Amino acid sequence: MKKKLWGGRFEGKTDDLVERLGESVSFDARLAPWDICASIAHARMLGARGIISKADAQKIVRGLKAIDKAIVAGTFQWDPALEDVHTNIEAALVERIGEAGKRLHTARSRNDQIATDIRLWARDQIDAVVRLLRDLQAVLVDFAEAHIDVILPGCTHLQHAQPVLLAHHYLAYFEMFARDRNRFTEARKRVDVMPLGAAALAGTPYTIDPKQVAQELGFKATAANSMDAVSDRDFLIEFCAAASITMMHLSRLCEELILWSTPEFGFIEIGDAFATGSSIMPQKKNPDVAELVRGKTGRVYGDLLGLLTTLKGLPLTYNRDLQEDKEAVFDASDTLQLCLAVTARMLPSIQVNEQAMAKAAREGFMEATDLADHLVAKGMPFRQAHGLVGRIVLYCIKSGRYLPDLTGEDLKRFSPLLDASICEKLDARALVRRRATTGGTGPRQVRAALRRAKRAVQSR
Amino acid sequence: MKKKLWGGRFEGKTDDLVERLGESVSFDARLAPWDICASIAHARMLGARGIISKADAQKIVRGLKAIDKAIVAGTFQWDPALEDVHTNIEAALVERIGEAGKRLHTARSRNDQIATDIRLWARDQIDAVVRLLRDLQAVLVDFAEAHIDVILPGCTHLQHAQPVLLAHHYLAYFEMFARDRNRFTEARKRVDVMPLGAAALAGTPYTIDPKQVAQELGFKATAANSMDAVSDRDFLIEFCAAASITMMHLSRLCEELILWSTPEFGFIEIGDAFATGSSIMPQKKNPDVAELVRGKTGRVYGDLLGLLTTLKGLPLTYNRDLQEDKEAVFDASDTLQLCLAVTARMLPSIQVNEQAMAKAAREGFMEATDLADHLVAKGMPFRQAHGLVGRIVLYCIKSGRYLPDLTGEDLKRFSPLLDASICEKLDARALVRRRATTGGTGPRQVRAALRRAKRAVQSR
Amino acid sequence: MKKKLWGGRFEGKTDDLVERLGESVSFDARLAPWDICASIAHARMLGARGIISKADAQKIVRGLKAIDKAIVAGTFQWDPALEDVHTNIEAALVERIGEAGKRLHTARSRNDQIATDIRLWARDQIDAVVRLLRDLQAVLVDFAEAHIDVILPGCTHLQHAQPVLLAHHYLAYFEMFARDRNRFTEARKRVDVMPLGAAALAGTPYTIDPKQVAQELGFKATAANSMDAVSDRDFLIEFCAAASITMMHLSRLCEELILWSTPEFGFIEIGDAFATGSSIMPQKKNPDVAELVRGKTGRVYGDLLGLLTTLKGLPLTYNRDLQEDKEAVFDASDTLQLCLAVTARMLPSIQVNEQAMAKAAREGFMEATDLADHLVAKGMPFRQAHGLVGRIVLYCIKSGRYLPDLTGEDLKRFSPLLDASICEKLDARALVRRRATTGGTGPRQVRAALRRAKRAVQSR
Amino acid sequence: MKKKLWGGRFEGKTDDLVERLGESVSFDARLAPWDICASIAHARMLGARGIISKADAQKIVRGLKAIDKAIVAGTFQWDPALEDVHTNIEAALVERIGEAGKRLHTARSRNDQIATDIRLWARDQIDAVVRLLRDLQAVLVDFAEAHIDVILPGCTHLQHAQPVLLAHHYLAYFEMFARDRNRFTEARKRVDVMPLGAAALAGTPYTIDPKQVAQELGFKATAANSMDAVSDRDFLIEFCAAASITMMHLSRLCEELILWSTPEFGFIEIGDAFATGSSIMPQKKNPDVAELVRGKTGRVYGDLLGLLTTLKGLPLTYNRDLQEDKEAVFDASDTLQLCLAVTARMLPSIQVNEQAMAKAAREGFMEATDLADHLVAKGMPFRQAHGLVGRIVLYCIKSGRYLPDLTGEDLKRFSPLLDASICEKLDARALVRRRATTGGTGPRQVRAALRRAKRAVQSR
Repeated sequence: MKKKLWGGRFEGKTDDLVERLGESVSFDARLAPWDICASIAHARMLGARGIISKADAQKIVRGLKAIDKAIVAGTFQWDPALEDVHTNIEAALVERIGEAGKRLHTARSRNDQIATDIRLWARDQIDAVVRLLRDLQAVLVDFAEAHIDVILPGCTHLQHAQPVLLAHHYLAYFEMFARDRNRFTEARKRVDVMPLGAAALAGTPYTIDPKQVAQELGFKATAANSMDAVSDRDFLIEFCAAASITMMHLSRLCEELILWSTPEFGFIEIGDAFATGSSIMPQKKNPDVAELVRGKTGRVYGDLLGLLTTLKGLPLTYNRDLQEDKEAVFDASDTLQLCLAVTARMLPSIQVNEQAMAKAAREGFMEATDLADHLVAKGMPFRQAHGLVGRIVLYCIKSGRYLPDLTGEDLKRFSPLLDASICEKLDARALVRRRATTGGTGPRQVRAALRRAKRAVQSR
Repeated sequence: MKKKLWGGRFEGKTDDLVERLGESVSFDARLAPWDICASIAHARMLGARGIISKADAQKIVRGLKAIDKAIVAGTFQWDPALEDVHTNIEAALVERIGEAGKRLHTARSRNDQIATDIRLWARDQIDAVVRLLRDLQAVLVDFAEAHIDVILPGCTHLQHAQPVLLAHHYLAYFEMFARDRNRFTEARKRVDVMPLGAAALAGTPYTIDPKQVAQELGFKATAANSMDAVSDRDFLIEFCAAASITMMHLSRLCEELILWSTPEFGFIEIGDAFATGSSIMPQKKNPDVAELVRGKTGRVYGDLLGLLTTLKGLPLTYNRDLQEDKEAVFDASDTLQLCLAVTARMLPSIQVNEQAMAKAAREGFMEATDLADHLVAKGMPFRQAHGLVGRIVLYCIKSGRYLPDLTGEDLKRFSPLLDASICEKLDARALVRRRATTGGTGPRQVRAALRRAKRAVQSR
Repeated sequence: MKKKLWGGRFEGKTDDLVERLGESVSFDARLAPWDICASIAHARMLGARGIISKADAQKIVRGLKAIDKAIVAGTFQWDPALEDVHTNIEAALVERIGEAGKRLHTARSRNDQIATDIRLWARDQIDAVVRLLRDLQAVLVDFAEAHIDVILPGCTHLQHAQPVLLAHHYLAYFEMFARDRNRFTEARKRVDVMPLGAAALAGTPYTIDPKQVAQELGFKATAANSMDAVSDRDFLIEFCAAASITMMHLSRLCEELILWSTPEFGFIEIGDAFATGSSIMPQKKNPDVAELVRGKTGRVYGDLLGLLTTLKGLPLTYNRDLQEDKEAVFDASDTLQLCLAVTARMLPSIQVNEQAMAKAAREGFMEATDLADHLVAKGMPFRQAHGLVGRIVLYCIKSGRYLPDLTGEDLKRFSPLLDASICEKLDARALVRRRATTGGTGPRQVRAALRRAKRAVQSR
Repeated sequence: MKKKLWGGRFEGKTDDLVERLGESVSFDARLAPWDICASIAHARMLGARGIISKADAQKIVRGLKAIDKAIVAGTFQWDPALEDVHTNIEAALVERIGEAGKRLHTARSRNDQIATDIRLWARDQIDAVVRLLRDLQAVLVDFAEAHIDVILPGCTHLQHAQPVLLAHHYLAYFEMFARDRNRFTEARKRVDVMPLGAAALAGTPYTIDPKQVAQELGFKATAANSMDAVSDRDFLIEFCAAASITMMHLSRLCEELILWSTPEFGFIEIGDAFATGSSIMPQKKNPDVAELVRGKTGRVYGDLLGLLTTLKGLPLTYNRDLQEDKEAVFDASDTLQLCLAVTARMLPSIQVNEQAMAKAAREGFMEATDLADHLVAKGMPFRQAHGLVGRIVLYCIKSGRYLPDLTGEDLKRFSPLLDASICEKLDARALVRRRATTGGTGPRQVRAALRRAKRAVQSR
């Protein structure tokens, strides 16, 4: 029978349900590459400091590398009775190299070991997420550029507000993902601190060299306080919070894709590769990918709230409740990465129906603001101009017309300040052109924004 | 190549990331037993109504039973390319019995099919949870009975308040789990409604007989509105909400077990089978099971909130977002059932340290309320008595004594209404005995409560 | 200086920030009517049992009634230094009637007092919510009846699926709110239990008569366990969970109203009284009410999560954390009631654009399922028919036509089983009529459902 | 009757429930100082650019300053019929200065106005939070320094693990709050971007100068995309996420204070100014402040979840759902600031019971790890040493002794590697001294950490 890492003080055997409740190897086995890395660095340091013999250190390193290979090759036997990834690997090491293997656990505890593993893992995930965000930004830039002349109705309250360039619309998402990158990048700094050396909670009496280990593992710093080092899971919560915000952004993007794919909007058609059909209705083409991404938002929120709840009110230092951190953050990370990747692939498949967008833009009374602005330019206070144009719109609705349909005569009846000359200024393209302030939807501004966006995507 | 259930209208192939995003068979395969049950009932009804031939119906039923056996035996090949449990089973059926298999999906859609499967599953889970709750209640009753004479300090704010019977303390948990049973039992009624017949969303033109299917599947009712039938996931949220409350109760119980196991409290010792050690500190015996149960509370909360978020703002009827319902509710159900079972097993392993509890009860100034009540009985208004006793307690703390240490002389100095005769009335057991109202901690009341509890556990 | 209800044991003064942190009267003053009711019943019982004199009991009752009047009249002075609603009222009582007032707090504690108040409050809120749900159901029935002939495209994935009656669509919401009523009604049973008599936590030595108090306050039962009685807040969580589900339903309804109000859908126009404009864009008419209701869903979810988190891991019995229960549940209740009321008022203001719905229904390829069913009736297996119709739809899309535009010739080219005779069967109204199973959208079924709905609304 | 800012297009009157649902002035009035600041900067820019006359600009500025004074003085009349803070102030301005007042709203919308106000507000709140965090850190440093020699049992799983310095324990919290400061400081950068100029969503045709406004308001940058500018609420979610993590840290600190205040632990006594009593139990001294802070954690989590949920799936740009952002973030900010402030005040009131901590440290078998390490130093592999010491501990428990009670004879019986000389090395102070690695609990390391902490607190 395989043995637990503890037990001398125990007389009774562990209950079988407890084994099931307590084992984590079914999900923490995925930490093996990082666990092995960290153990190798630890062993080398122990050897260098003379805490174990150089020969033992070398044996350990070789043993761990062989185990790593076995894991990659899929030949490693994981045993749930050995509780977790650490014990499984250590047991295999002892089996392979004998007594020396038992010396690896000198001057560390599973408490600082898991804290190290999960930080190494999180650092790599953040790097992957940041890359995926950049890829998605690049796709957005390409998409915006490819549709640089397309105008659609910009909405507030999902009601037509003012015409905007489709490129401008998608550059709004570019900005969101830029903030997301920023947020992950900064969270990474708080991940990049090595807990090894904290041992169980108080530090270790061995004359270890944490700096050497940190350097080998690429950590920027070592933990300033051993008790904090083994109980801190802030960085995982922060990861989930950043992931939640990114998922929220994706959910907004996907909501629009779903709306725009309806026959009523008809603004876009998503490529067949990113839609599915119905088992019963042969005509159906459903934007499933967008729906799944939107739906998965709730899941990542749940991961965040689960973690926050678990951490609430825990006394220092390590408590077994912390074992619950892993599945939540694994799920958040996997979900986020899959959703980012699939969205980036889906966007280029989209066919834009320029005519549908243009028609919608014409029929939205979106010239109203500029009509009011025109009156203001002629000296009417804004609030009064606003009221007057509101009444013109109401008149149109009742007589089944749109603003471009009104004649100079019609307009004059509302105010002597209006005449036919205003009409040409109210063309959608003219309206767009006039929003020429930085950040606005004017074509020059959007082209400038595109150039900045391209640079931001290329840089790192 | 296996084929999707749809595709005639499509030209492009599904993207491979989309396959990964969209497949659900990796987690909904566990619904197979319920899916097969429902399909058998559906096929029999189709046969009985002449919608398909009796011969085809029989072939289908036999085919499905064979598939069920293969699944139980572990020989069934699940194929992620076939998306979900339904398509996998239907494809296998067609492979086994040919054309007849293709007729099974007549007059239904995956929308009403999954709604039916998950309701059958949920009904069974609720039954299992209710049984586990009853088992845990039975364990609490036994535990209370076995320690019927043990007194401990009852706390408010985790400060000693008034002595109570340990049995009374655990019967408080009995009440919580009674409410939980109640809540699950009532939620079950809203699960027990059959959606089959709603087809995709609008009902079906076939002259089906939903009542027959409902009867075979043991459903109390058929859905009153087909659009609601395919989009309703209330019952899963309700399940998760009830599970969250139960987990909250378990977290409170476990928090106390953890506190009481500290050397400072020393009130209990959890059995070796339900504790673990440390890989580095040989003396450690940790209440891991209680910690894990407490920690898993966050996870179930997260499942609940994930579901609620996913459902928010979804237009009718089925949207693919709903695929996200399953993993959340599976996780909540598994977690809850495991935690209930392991807690029920752990409790009997606990050794109660009666002496430690008694000592704590003596040193808590818990006689103060009764001392005040004594003064009230002598005619002093309560608020005044409360103030006087507060000053006596302060005097004790400053002179390093407890209330039982005071002499008649000491007491008289505070009020002429006090003398030595009060002392015997302030023994912990006397204090407990005096709380003799229904629901109070008086031994007679607790014994009566125990009798009621036993009856409640035995009934169903 | 006003005095706290405790203090004899204390030497230092309370810190002023602590006063701010700890006071609850700024939000629990709203419990005054229920607090006074409960105190009156308690005083009467104390008098009846001879625990206080009948004369004192009468004085107390009269005093409390006078205070109630002052509160209703807005002349009562709330003092934050007196912490909470209970102490404010008790202090006012003593000021009014002297010594007798001090006897009111005999045989009870603020722990069972607040538990009683909040249950009385919750019971009344549930009654109000159930009434509002019924009102909303009644509005839905009227709305459905008024549009009994209107057909719109029923959607899955927000894509046209099959035509349905608008009445059928709204009866789906009727069913949701019926479940909500049900859920609140059952939650009420768990509220309807009186905690008074539990005192601080252990029961009271006074020979009180909880049954008398319960009867006067209309409680169905008295608490079975005093420790549970003062620490149970399940019913508030359950209230918030039920409120969350109802808000989720409202959010779905409102999402659709928002979509249908877009110029692209143009299915409805919400009345001016339930929309707002823009400060800058004169043409805007925004569905603000629907947006606000949808947006407030998050808030109620937050209240639920907050409560669950606060309760997690609390040892028995009362802990001050529980003070946090009130603002969350007040907010959830206020929000829910306002949203239900405003939605019920908004619906009748909606103008349905029948033509827009009919046009959309015609152009959605929604005849496809029935075309496939037709082929099945002619002997083709369903899966094969599904594929064939999919190809017909694709052909239409590519040639810019809809299914009703196809001639018999066109159809025959796809299959010899098809000809012109099928066309009339594919009219939207015919498709609807054919879904004639219980719960389906067939007009007879919908009329029957309407009749059932009316009865359900009228009954209680 | 006061008029809405819109209305020309409307015929019907707003429903009164809608007024109640939609008004925000009851909570957004607190934004007045920031709204006025932003309006002053906007007016000055309009004047400078000649969009309005200089004279009008000056009138507006003077008018707004007068309104600001009225608000500060409490003489300003807020009118809920005027919906929000913006309209109330604008209406008052027009009333005061006439026509010129109507020109203030030129080239902006409430959409970019509220986005600006809330960013200005959030920036100030972050600054306040960062100051409060630093104050709390300073208090922790003082507390740690004042108890630099105190040893207590360091725990994992709330079981004694290894002795640590109390100063080390509190420096762990110092690290948490350092990360919190860091997190808020970085979030501030994403707040520090000015949305004015985005107007409703698309930019404005006026030739405004956003840079001038940004400079006057102290913003680092102007928004890069107008559509993002009016719909971005990331920074509020990020604020709530950072607040949630900080509250989680406070909840851990408070949980420990509550535990340590129990008679069983008796490690500390919280000052009278930060505790409260019971209305019924005269002896009670309850750690209410710590409980309230712990309890309020749930509330802030709820605010976070509410915001995330509200934002999920919102199409661009402004939707009225966003009005729900304010109450959540106001509540999170108020709660966090109050909790930080009160905790910083409470800590210095705490009296540490050094003897109780020392006694607990002696009786915890915490020498076990070092005993094992001793054996390892003598050549025994760690796992074997761990097992042996486990058995020694078990022997002690069974014979009612602690490790320091064992004689050399006792020890030798377990292993020839052990003798009496080991005993002195196992004194708690020696154990602490030996954890001399960076970040460990060794006194020299802790003193160094204290010095670093002081510097970090003094710097900004």
